[in-house]
Amino acid sequence: MDDINRVIERNRQRYLDDLFTLLRQPSISAQDTGVRECARLLQGLMEEAGIRTRIFETARHPVVYGEAGEPDAEKAILVYGHYDVQPPEPLAEWLSPPFEPSVRDGKIYGRGSSDNKGQLFAHVKGLQSYLEARGGLPRGLKMKYIFEGEEEISSPNLEGFAAAHKDLLKADAAIFSDSHVHESGFPTVILGLKGMLYIELVVKTIKQDMHSLKAASLPSPVWRLVTLLSHIKGEDGVVKIPGYYDDVRRPTAEEIRAVEAIPYEKVAIMRDHGASHLIQGRTTDHYYYNLTFEPTANIAGIFSGYQGKGSKTVLPAEAHAKLDLRLVPDQKPKRVLNNLRDYLDDLGYNDVRIEVHGELEPSRTPLDNPWVAVAVRAVRKAYSMEPVIYPGIGGSGPNYVFTGTLGMPCVLVPFAAHDQANHAPNENMILEGYFNGIRTAAAIIDEAAKA
Amino acid sequence: MDDINRVIERNRQRYLDDLFTLLRQPSISAQDTGVRECARLLQGLMEEAGIRTRIFETARHPVVYGEAGEPDAEKAILVYGHYDVQPPEPLAEWLSPPFEPSVRDGKIYGRGSSDNKGQLFAHVKGLQSYLEARGGLPRGLKMKYIFEGEEEISSPNLEGFAAAHKDLLKADAAIFSDSHVHESGFPTVILGLKGMLYIELVVKTIKQDMHSLKAASLPSPVWRLVTLLSHIKGEDGVVKIPGYYDDVRRPTAEEIRAVEAIPYEKVAIMRDHGASHLIQGRTTDHYYYNLTFEPTANIAGIFSGYQGKGSKTVLPAEAHAKLDLRLVPDQKPKRVLNNLRDYLDDLGYNDVRIEVHGELEPSRTPLDNPWVAVAVRAVRKAYSMEPVIYPGIGGSGPNYVFTGTLGMPCVLVPFAAHDQANHAPNENMILEGYFNGIRTAAAIIDEAAKA
Repeated sequence: MDDINRVIERNRQRYLDDLFTLLRQPSISAQDTGVRECARLLQGLMEEAGIRTRIFETARHPVVYGEAGEPDAEKAILVYGHYDVQPPEPLAEWLSPPFEPSVRDGKIYGRGSSDNKGQLFAHVKGLQSYLEARGGLPRGLKMKYIFEGEEEISSPNLEGFAAAHKDLLKADAAIFSDSHVHESGFPTVILGLKGMLYIELVVKTIKQDMHSLKAASLPSPVWRLVTLLSHIKGEDGVVKIPGYYDDVRRPTAEEIRAVEAIPYEKVAIMRDHGASHLIQGRTTDHYYYNLTFEPTANIAGIFSGYQGKGSKTVLPAEAHAKLDLRLVPDQKPKRVLNNLRDYLDDLGYNDVRIEVHGELEPSRTPLDNPWVAVAVRAVRKAYSMEPVIYPGIGGSGPNYVFTGTLGMPCVLVPFAAHDQANHAPNENMILEGYFNGIRTAAAIIDEAAKA
Repeated sequence: MDDINRVIERNRQRYLDDLFTLLRQPSISAQDTGVRECARLLQGLMEEAGIRTRIFETARHPVVYGEAGEPDAEKAILVYGHYDVQPPEPLAEWLSPPFEPSVRDGKIYGRGSSDNKGQLFAHVKGLQSYLEARGGLPRGLKMKYIFEGEEEISSPNLEGFAAAHKDLLKADAAIFSDSHVHESGFPTVILGLKGMLYIELVVKTIKQDMHSLKAASLPSPVWRLVTLLSHIKGEDGVVKIPGYYDDVRRPTAEEIRAVEAIPYEKVAIMRDHGASHLIQGRTTDHYYYNLTFEPTANIAGIFSGYQGKGSKTVLPAEAHAKLDLRLVPDQKPKRVLNNLRDYLDDLGYNDVRIEVHGELEPSRTPLDNPWVAVAVRAVRKAYSMEPVIYPGIGGSGPNYVFTGTLGMPCVLVPFAAHDQANHAPNENMILEGYFNGIRTAAAIIDEAAKA
């Protein structure tokens, strides 16, 4: 790796300038701002790095696809990233403009610096440094790149694109770099994401809001919602939807050991979150255990009636609750939804409407998959540190398209810091994180060739 | 009464003009707009009608007090009203400006036309017509008037004022005209109002809103609130606060008969409110029975987390529920509050804050009180119709100051129509309702003298 590291050192400023070019181009998928321009710009930067590219149209924002190495190589790694970004609002809170990247205190500030342009571009530059140092990819290995423009709007076309291009995307493993390293600064390797069912429960009992004196005789939608919710989860925190835990995959002894090895202090976590306790899950109150292995039923929002200051006496007509149920393998959003509908009907809540706002499948690659060891070796080589291995994390993402539709292992190797402020003002990427990412990307090529 | 009716007929336009003068003067207690000016204007109009007046300052808005008749008369009737009004907003929805009264389709439109300037002024004009027809009040009878300027902000100084002026306010009965006649147009006589305890429950479990992935390990304030609420009322609608029903006064057989005699069609009520059923209370689903005799625990508002369109994945830091508990005699807001606090503490919810936004005592004058018969005879005479008698209604008000602090029977004799739109744009008073009110006020003097 010394040859590659020398190339990276020599090109530090150039690699940074190229990233800044990418960061300067807005690509706000939710607002349809600059996404196509960004796709073309990224295509050009990939071509310069030695990648053969092609842009695929989808129903909304294009996919930028690329390949490097011998076309008929037997082995292939598929790198996923997304070049779209979150809206930058509220603009007034940015210390430097979101689309004018700048370096302060060892951090690159700008929208997309970590989520996800900075991290995906480390793979582009990792390849470029490899090609410059070695004159080509290892014999028999092909690198593939799929950079979508719709991740921040829940990847509505990714699964369809993958299903329609299975041959093009065929690979031995998928690599994601869209998360963050451990709080301690240790690099991480992440093997799974949760799925999600996002629903809104809507209860309506009377035609319009009325004077609350009528609460003595007319049914309240809020009490009906509260009672319904108490059938979904009780005081013990266990979800009561029939069959909810039936499909929860039992963690292996190795996965449990890996989770228990993630550095963490219970008291510090409680203090940092201002919490008096951690949730006593079905088996433990271990922070990472429940984050990794336990599905949730969170109330992300509830609202009905008067919400202003002081008092107003109203019997509301409608009540709403928004729930995100984070699912673990092998739960299925559709099955949970059907079970919930049947359950509510059985309980007599057939008047309650369930609106579905989103569905994502969970994913988890087994610890003992050989490509996990490849990623771990690559990270160890790039950082000269032992990575922290997460069998899964609490968040959700499109990884299931790779583990599911495309049927390959999927390993996350993130480079951003844990306080990256993604989705928020002053998003940033630690400067050394970017170069660690470039080194890791090159090391992945090296290790993949040996695997 | 023919002599009085002739006086009223002769003065129709003048009585209407005087009311319009009063309606033109804004007196928005919540916004401190024009209240003092209105008190002085009302004072002048009362003096013109033959009432000796005096303005009493309170901590905020003045009380206009008046007397007519021999100073040393043994018998006294105390008429209560309020000259303050609700804010007129939203202004755009008024078909004619709120403080420029106008008559359309037999109705007087304007803020305060029914609530309560129109109704209190009927008493002023009733006295004036009586004095003009008969040359003075009946021997031995004195009329007293207490018109406050703070009813729309929950009468914060009325109880203190009454306690400090018990001699001044001494009377055989209090008459209120601050409600509405029956939907059918039949006049009503109302004998009770509910009390109220208005509280806000505040639950906080973490220091700030967080990504909902953390719901697997960190406690949710919304679930805690939902679980707590399920301890306050269950699926059967019965309030579970210990001792809640202990102080509920058992209705007499006569009161139950009176409630059952109130004209109503269950199917029509359900249709008018868009409800699939009426609440099955502890003993019956009779609309008026529960409205009159059963206390409530209504959720007037609930809110936490995301309330916009679609989905946002957040673990909220705080959750709020606003509850108005409408109390019946002989429940006490303070006792209910203490019982609730103890109950929540016993259940382990000692971290949950209870903010008190309002307390009102309930009131109910017994059906067999002789002053009820006086009011009924007066209404019968004025309308030539049999009044519908309500032992109580579902709303709340300061009546307990009269039944409690001042220890007198309190009878409501309203003149407004049921669709008066009080507290709303296009508030109105039926034109004939105003004159019926004047006739009723005069008849009350007549009947009181005979009692």
